This record gives sequence, structure tokens and C-alpha cells, in this order.
Amino acid sequence: MIYLDNAATTRILPCATEKIIRFADKEYFNPSAGYAPAIAVRHEIDRSAEVIASMLGADADEIVFTSCATESNNYALSCGIKNKKGNIVVSASEHASVYECAMRLRSRGTEVRFVDPDKTGHVTPESVAAATDRNTAFVSVIHCSNETGTVNDISGISAAVRAVSPTAVIHSDGVQAFAKIRTDMHTLGVDLYSVSAHKVGGLKGVGALFIRRGLNMQPFIAGGGQQSGRRSGTENVCGITSFSAAAAEYAKAAETFDAHSLRKIFTDRFGGRADVLVNGCGILSGYILSLSFKGLKGEIIAHGMEDRGILIGLGSACSTHVKANRTLGAMGVGKDFAEGSVRISFSPATTRAEAETAAEALEEVTDELHRKTGR
Amino acid sequence: MIYLDNAATTRILPCATEKIIRFADKEYFNPSAGYAPAIAVRHEIDRSAEVIASMLGADADEIVFTSCATESNNYALSCGIKNKKGNIVVSASEHASVYECAMRLRSRGTEVRFVDPDKTGHVTPESVAAATDRNTAFVSVIHCSNETGTVNDISGISAAVRAVSPTAVIHSDGVQAFAKIRTDMHTLGVDLYSVSAHKVGGLKGVGALFIRRGLNMQPFIAGGGQQSGRRSGTENVCGITSFSAAAAEYAKAAETFDAHSLRKIFTDRFGGRADVLVNGCGILSGYILSLSFKGLKGEIIAHGMEDRGILIGLGSACSTHVKANRTLGAMGVGKDFAEGSVRISFSPATTRAEAETAAEALEEVTDELHRKTGR
Repeated sequence: MIYLDNAATTRILPCATEKIIRFADKEYFNPSAGYAPAIAVRHEIDRSAEVIASMLGADADEIVFTSCATESNNYALSCGIKNKKGNIVVSASEHASVYECAMRLRSRGTEVRFVDPDKTGHVTPESVAAATDRNTAFVSVIHCSNETGTVNDISGISAAVRAVSPTAVIHSDGVQAFAKIRTDMHTLGVDLYSVSAHKVGGLKGVGALFIRRGLNMQPFIAGGGQQSGRRSGTENVCGITSFSAAAAEYAKAAETFDAHSLRKIFTDRFGGRADVLVNGCGILSGYILSLSFKGLKGEIIAHGMEDRGILIGLGSACSTHVKANRTLGAMGVGKDFAEGSVRISFSPATTRAEAETAAEALEEVTDELHRKTGR
Repeated sequence: MIYLDNAATTRILPCATEKIIRFADKEYFNPSAGYAPAIAVRHEIDRSAEVIASMLGADADEIVFTSCATESNNYALSCGIKNKKGNIVVSASEHASVYECAMRLRSRGTEVRFVDPDKTGHVTPESVAAATDRNTAFVSVIHCSNETGTVNDISGISAAVRAVSPTAVIHSDGVQAFAKIRTDMHTLGVDLYSVSAHKVGGLKGVGALFIRRGLNMQPFIAGGGQQSGRRSGTENVCGITSFSAAAAEYAKAAETFDAHSLRKIFTDRFGGRADVLVNGCGILSGYILSLSFKGLKGEIIAHGMEDRGILIGLGSACSTHVKANRTLGAMGVGKDFAEGSVRISFSPATTRAEAETAAEALEEVTDELHRKTGR
């Protein structure tokens, strides 16, 4: 089997499994308890926060562990908005968890301004600035698109927003960027940043939210006051400790992994064709590739690939419950292409041979479908 | 080491570890993806929902998996209140996650009526009914107290509430009851019921909320629409599948485990003493025992026990971040006793010999402390 849906979830790394077994079977104590073995567990959580923080150019006390990036995004959009009368600016190419929270805010009376990406898939500082005014209370722009891999200029966006609305809280969803491309909070200039474990070799059910020191936010989940009162609920010890172990190892592997060269195998093969769109161009992550085949259906292409033992995605796995691809639509990709979209995504474990086999299979599958449909 | 803090968290069961390894290492696919191995994972989640549902006398579509019971309780109190102008009735002996959510609602203008437990630790149907009127929109009473083990008559409370306010939504926090005592949703008559994995041999970071069919609730966490739109975020596959496996095995072990006989070892030894309170009496769970030693400090008793290799709790691990024990205070336990409180809690893995050793050690430790303090 060739697995090329790593942007949806990736295989857990052995270093992470080790942590899970250790903290499930031996050090199973509640980190809030007062005896020494429980305090040792609490220290392991602190160390995990330090690891994640260092990968974000942040301090450990700026990291709150959550149950997933979706929770992180809900936390950011529910609790990050101080000025209840202000407007919020959100890109139109956000992950569903940001988009749906924005729509919920709109339904409750908040003015929400959506900013479309340009044809290259990028949400530009200029377009965000144009939507921002001095009453803008909150801005959210995804760092690396989960659909196309395009990397937005978050530093430029932060600077542009602050020039107009210095008090706006700036959030970025960093799920597809974290451990893969540079994610330095100081450079990015954001107040809030969401990351996830299961995209970098950790368990599903764990994420984190960077909250810049000094940003006073109500907790999204209230209760026993864990994590300095910022996220109640017994800490997911296995998830958190395996997250930091996996993320560190993943980032190390990413340093020498040339995702772009795998991506190029596909773009070389399909880039010149009039009936295929490579969605997104310019600055992008090598880990994600979105291709749209004119006149075909993404589901049917993916099934054809699966018949050959190759698993690819259709786009965000979190959007399989909705019909149209919002990001591609906002980029101006027409329906005839958009319906034939597939997402191919790599991990440092992906080999060149796998990518070559998959690219060849994708050409065969789509050619065959064209023949069948008589095009 | 003798571990008697099982109400805080318990050791993960081997059947649960097996599931974690299987779904971390082999079946790591995103349950929202469209290919066959991912669909197989989705079916495993469905099967887990069936297991949890059957343990609650509910149907699988009434189960929503969350990241912990704290999230379940936040979900219930944030989204279960339809009539925004109505009052809510909450017992004063709730877990911090219910209490803090109630306090947050109060700070936003909702009228919150707290009902004290009686001296036996029980929140009675009569006292809840007395606080309820036809404008009561929401009621939350804990099923089994996490502090004292007292089991409230939730059936009676539901009936009493519905007689006064037929449209009130009724929630119960069932964390310490689930898999230990009978938790049948039809019998209890509740609309919402919270449970947790790590109290029954599963991982920390997983819980569930029973939502009675027909109760139309907004999701607490919005996004990709997982779990029929009721809880977005990639499902915690390892956590969920290991939760159902552990819960089923735990419940089976609980059938033949006589927790009351272990509890009795302690109550026989301390029950007759004027300087010791056994908190709670009447109908209670055998899994939890709360003792208050007059003139002593709980932390110091627990340290003395730890020196002898015995780990006990002070009360809810989720309340170690706050000072006073709210539940004991509401029961009328005076400060001179309350400060000297410890919580001893069992699991089916606890042996009679362990309980006997611990009870003897507890007497020695407290006697020694009395001598040292010159009482």
C-alpha cells in the first residue's frame, strides 16, 4: 500500500508509541494529584510544553494543550475576541473549524469579513489590510493551506493588520505548517496559533494553542483549572507526551526530507496539461499537492487509485461532510475542474519510488476514466 | 506500591492498550477519509459508540465522543440551555467542570440556583424540586459524588423536575457512576449524561456525552462536521476504541467486585471515632470513601501514606487548584474536619490485602500525626 493522505493524518511514530505505553501502563497517575509519581507526570507535561514551545519560538507558558486543532481554533475564535462590537476578518480559505466558528459568530450578530485568496491560492497582506479597519477585533488567516499547500505571508499580514488596528488579535491555523516549515511566533507576529499532533506522527485527539503571553483570554473549557486555568480537564498525558516526542522527531526528519522533489514528480507530469490544474503556485509547502482534472470526479479518481493500492485524499478530510471545496471555489477554480480534485500529501516516510509509482498510476487512472467517459 | 486514587484516574487495561497500538500503528487512517481502510476505522468508532450506548441503555446515535467529561459538562451547560431567560438549578456538590460553567453562566446574567446536599451528602428530589419552577430551563445533579461516593436519586430528581418544568433539560455527571453502578438513561430520565474513559481503564483525554435523541443541541466544538455535526474534530480513534474496550471489561469486573467490602474495612476501623468523619452515608458507591480527620491536614496525611508506599487522594484531583472542598462545605462539614480530609478510591484491581494494609497504615499515620501535634 502506498499512503499519500498524510495531510489528513499520518502514521504514529515509534517514539510516540513508546510514550503512550509508558504513560498508559506505568505512569498512569493523574497529573493534578499531589504524590511524587503524579508530580513526575506533571513535569513530563511541562517538558512537552517546552518542546512544542521551542518549535514555535515561544515559551512553555504560552502553550495550552487541547484535544485537537479544531478545539484550538474554536478556542481562538470563541475567546480571542475582546471587542464584542468589532468586526472580524477571516480568509475564505480557512479550515472548516475556523470557517464554521466565523459563521457562528456571524449568526450571532458579529460582522465577519471574508477575504478571498488570489488565483495563486495566497491570501495577501494587501487583501487582508483592505478588509481591516480600526474596528477590526480579530483576524484569522491559515498559515499553510490544507487544500493546496500554499503558504501565506503571515508576518506581512500581521504587520498590515497592526498598522490599521493595533489592538486586533491575530490568529493563524498552523496545522499544516508546524514541524514542516518555519513556525516562529515572533517572526509571524501572531497572538494565537493552532497546531495538531496527528499531522506530525502523534495521536489523533491532541493539539495545542499558542497564546501569546499577556493576551488575557477566558478559557474555552472551564472546570478544575488545569493548565493554569486556561484549559480544564485532566490532561491527555499519553497524547501530550507522545505529541512532543513525535513533533520533535518529525521536524528533524523534515529538515532533510525534500518534499518539493516528490511534489515535482507530479507537477512535471501534469503541470503542462490543459485539462489538469495544479492548484496553488508561488510559495508553498512541498507536503501537499492539489490537482484538478477537468470533467472527472475526485471520488472516482481516488477509487481508481485505491484499486491500485494507493490511498490519496480528495481535499480536507474534515470537509468530506460538506459538498463543494470552499478553498478552490474562492480561488476561482471552475466547477468543471473543482469536482475532479484530488489531494496528494507526503510525510518524511514517503519514498521517491512511491511518489513515482503513484504519479504514473494517477495518469493511467485518469486517462482510463477519460476514455470511459468518451473525452 | 498500593494505589488507592482510582477516582482520579486508574491504570489502563491491557485490552485498551491493544486497541491503541492497533489504531496508532496499523489502522492509523483518518475516519473521515473515503477509502476502505478509513471506512473500517469509522466503523470501529461506530462500534465503540454502540458499546458505550448499551452500557447506558441508550442507542449509538445518542453518544457523542468528547475529549473528557469536563468537555462533556461544558458542552451540556453551554449548549443544553434553550430558554435563555430561564433559570438553572445545579447542585452545590458538582464537579468543578459543572460548577465553573454554572458560575460563568451566572456572570453572564443567567439566574443560577444552587441546591445544597443534605448532611448525608445526598441532593434530594425534594430539595431540587423546591428550587425548580416553571421557568427552570436546565438542571444538573451529579449521579455519584466524586468526593464522597454518595449516589443521588437521579430518577427521582428527573421526575420531580419534570413535574414542575416539563421542558427543562436535565443533565447528570455520571463519571464516577459509569461502569460501576447502574446507569440506564431510561430509568434515570435524563437528557444529557457525561462519562469519562480514564476512570474505567481507558486513556485520559476521552469522554462521552449522552444526548437524548430529539434534543436539538448546537455543537460545542464546530468545524468539519464529524460525529453527525455534533462534535467536530478528527475523532480520537485510539482513545475512543480503547475507551469502549476498557469500559466493557471494567463493567464486567465490577459485577463481581465487592467495593463495599473494601470500603467497610475503613469504615469499621474509623467509623466509631469521634475525631473522624466518614463523609456521606446511605446509598453510596463502594468505590469512593471520604474520611475527615479532625485537627489534621489532608496533605500531610497523604504524604505520610506516600512514605509508606500508599497513594491516596485529597478529594477531586480536578480541585487541587482550588483551596476548600466545596462539596464537604456544602454538606456542613466544619473546617476543623474538612481540612483533614482524604479520599480513598478503589478499582476492581484493588485487593482486600491492599485495603487492609492501607487502613492500618492510615490509622498509624494519623495517630502519629496526632502525637506530633500534641493532641
